[in-house]
Amino acid sequence: MMRQAGRYLPEYRAVRSKVDFLTLCKTPELAAEVTLQPVRRLGVDAAIVFADILLPLEAMGAELVFTPGDGPSFPHPIRSREAIATLTVPDVEDRLGYVLETIRQVRSELAGAVPLIGFGGSPWTLAAYLVEGGPSRTYSQLLAWSYSDPAGLAILLERLAETSAAYLGAQVEAGAQAIQIFDTWGGLLSAERWRAIALPPLRTVIAALARRVPVLYYINDGSHLLPELASLEVDVLSVDWRVPLATVRAVVGARPLQGNLDPAALLAPIPDIEAHTRRLLSEGSGGPHIVNLGHGILPQTPVDHARAFVETAQRAALP
Amino acid sequence: MMRQAGRYLPEYRAVRSKVDFLTLCKTPELAAEVTLQPVRRLGVDAAIVFADILLPLEAMGAELVFTPGDGPSFPHPIRSREAIATLTVPDVEDRLGYVLETIRQVRSELAGAVPLIGFGGSPWTLAAYLVEGGPSRTYSQLLAWSYSDPAGLAILLERLAETSAAYLGAQVEAGAQAIQIFDTWGGLLSAERWRAIALPPLRTVIAALARRVPVLYYINDGSHLLPELASLEVDVLSVDWRVPLATVRAVVGARPLQGNLDPAALLAPIPDIEAHTRRLLSEGSGGPHIVNLGHGILPQTPVDHARAFVETAQRAALP
Repeated sequence: MMRQAGRYLPEYRAVRSKVDFLTLCKTPELAAEVTLQPVRRLGVDAAIVFADILLPLEAMGAELVFTPGDGPSFPHPIRSREAIATLTVPDVEDRLGYVLETIRQVRSELAGAVPLIGFGGSPWTLAAYLVEGGPSRTYSQLLAWSYSDPAGLAILLERLAETSAAYLGAQVEAGAQAIQIFDTWGGLLSAERWRAIALPPLRTVIAALARRVPVLYYINDGSHLLPELASLEVDVLSVDWRVPLATVRAVVGARPLQGNLDPAALLAPIPDIEAHTRRLLSEGSGGPHIVNLGHGILPQTPVDHARAFVETAQRAALP
Repeated sequence: MMRQAGRYLPEYRAVRSKVDFLTLCKTPELAAEVTLQPVRRLGVDAAIVFADILLPLEAMGAELVFTPGDGPSFPHPIRSREAIATLTVPDVEDRLGYVLETIRQVRSELAGAVPLIGFGGSPWTLAAYLVEGGPSRTYSQLLAWSYSDPAGLAILLERLAETSAAYLGAQVEAGAQAIQIFDTWGGLLSAERWRAIALPPLRTVIAALARRVPVLYYINDGSHLLPELASLEVDVLSVDWRVPLATVRAVVGARPLQGNLDPAALLAPIPDIEAHTRRLLSEGSGGPHIVNLGHGILPQTPVDHARAFVETAQRAALP
C-alpha cells in the first residue's frame, strides 16, 4: 500500500510523538523501524522504505520545512533560471546517506522475508513542489513557467532528473529490490505537453534504472495520459482509482498493472471492503496485477480495515 | 472566460479594496459593476453574473467565512445525517435576493448588448466544500462518507439539488439567459460511482432548467467521465484543458462544446497566446464551439494577455 508506513498505525504515531518528521526520515534506526511496522502488523507482501519524495530537493540545496498540520514547504521556491543555479546535483552518499543506511538496515532485518521497494518522485512532480513552494491546488506557478519559459523549466527538470537517477540508483545499490517513481502531478498536463515537458526527464530516470531492478511508475489522475503510458519503458504501471483496471488494460495492453482501490473505500464497513477488494481482483484479472490502493492510505483508516484489504487480496491469490 | 470578473482586473481590485468578498457579492450595485467590467475592458461576448457557488449553502443555514488569503471555509462542516437536519431549503428571494437583484441590474445596464450567464455548483461539488469545510486537496471526508454511508450522503445531495434547482430557476426568472453548472470535483469519482452518486441530484437540477434557457455543464478533470457525459441532457459540455476538444468530440459526439485553453497559457508571451488560441479554434472546429478557458482565469494574468485571447478568437470568428 502507498504510505503503508504512516499515521493510521498507532505504532507509527508512537514513534512520531517523539521526533519530528524530518528527524524520523534522517534517523535510520527509526526509519527502518517504521518501515517494518506494516509488514509485522498487516503482513503485506513488500516493505516500502520510509522516506519522502522531497528529500533529494533538500539535498540539492533547497531549504525544506515540515510544519505540523501544514505539511512540507520550500520557503524559497525555484521560479527562474537564476534560482536554478542555487541547486546542485548532490553527492548522494554524502547528502542522502541516511536513506541508503535505512535501506541497508531494513534489508538486514527482513532477511529475505519480503522484498523492499525504494521510491522517488518524477522530475515533473518534484518540480511541482519546488516551483510552487509546497503542495498546491492549482500548481499555477509551475504551469505558468511551463508556458512563459519552457526552456528554462527544462533546465530545472533535467537537473532534477540527474539527481533522481543518482539517488534511485544509489537506493538500488544499497539494497532496494524495486523502485517506484511517483508522478503525482503528471496529470496536470495534456498528453502533448506531458510528452514534450515531463517525459524527457522521466526517461532519463527510467534509463538509469532499467534492467537493474523492476521499475514501477505511478501516475495520479492520468486517465487522459493512458495512451502515452502504453509505450513507457517501465515494468509496472500503477494508477489511481478513477479508471477500472480492465479499462486501463484495454488502453495500455497486457502489461503488469498496480492498484487501484480508492483509499476512501477502506473507510467503508469491513464486509464492503472485502467486496470492493474481490471486485478489484476481478477487474485486474486480465494480466499480472499487484494489488494496491490508488493513492496513499488515509490517516483515519482503522487498522483492521487495512488488514481486511490485505487479507482479502492474499486469500484470493492462494492457489 | 470563467472568473472573468476577478482579481486580474485592476478595476475589480479597486472595488475589492473597499469591501470584503461577501459584501461585494451581497451588494447588487457593486456586484453588477464588477460583472460589467470585463465586458467593457475586454469586449467578451457574454457577461457572467458575479457571485460565488457557495452562496446558496450559506442561504441553507451553513456558516460561511471568507478569510483573506485562505479563501472560503465552513467552520461547521456537514458530515452526518444529524448535521443535514441543520440545513433548510431556503426561500430564494428572501435569502439570495441579492443575486437576483444583481441579475436584474446587469440586464438593465446591458440593455441587450451581450447576454448574461448565471451559474451555480453541481450538488456533488457543493457537497465537496460543505462536507470538507472548504477547499481540499483530497476531499477525503467527502469520499469517506460516500463509502461509509452512501444513503446518508444521498440525502444531503438531494437537499442541495432541491436548493440549486430553486436558486438557478430564480436566476432565470430574474433574467439570466443561460445557466452554467460547475462540477469542479465530479472527476474525483470513477464513472460508475459518478453515475450512482453525483448524477441523480445533478439531473434534478438540469430537469428544473431544461427548455427554459440553454444549460452549460462544466466538469473539471473529468476525462474518464466523458463517455458518461455523452448522454447528459445539457446544451453545452464545458471541459478543462487536459483533453483536446477534437478528442472530446470523438467521445461525446457532435454536440456543442465550451473551452478549453489552459488558463496558464495566458501567462505565455502574447504571440504564443495567439498561436494557442488559433490552435484551440482549430481543435474545436468539428462542431459548435464556445471559446473559453479550461478553468478560471489566473489572478496574475496581465490584462493585455486576456485581451489577446479574446481578440484572437473574435477575429477568427468573423465571416
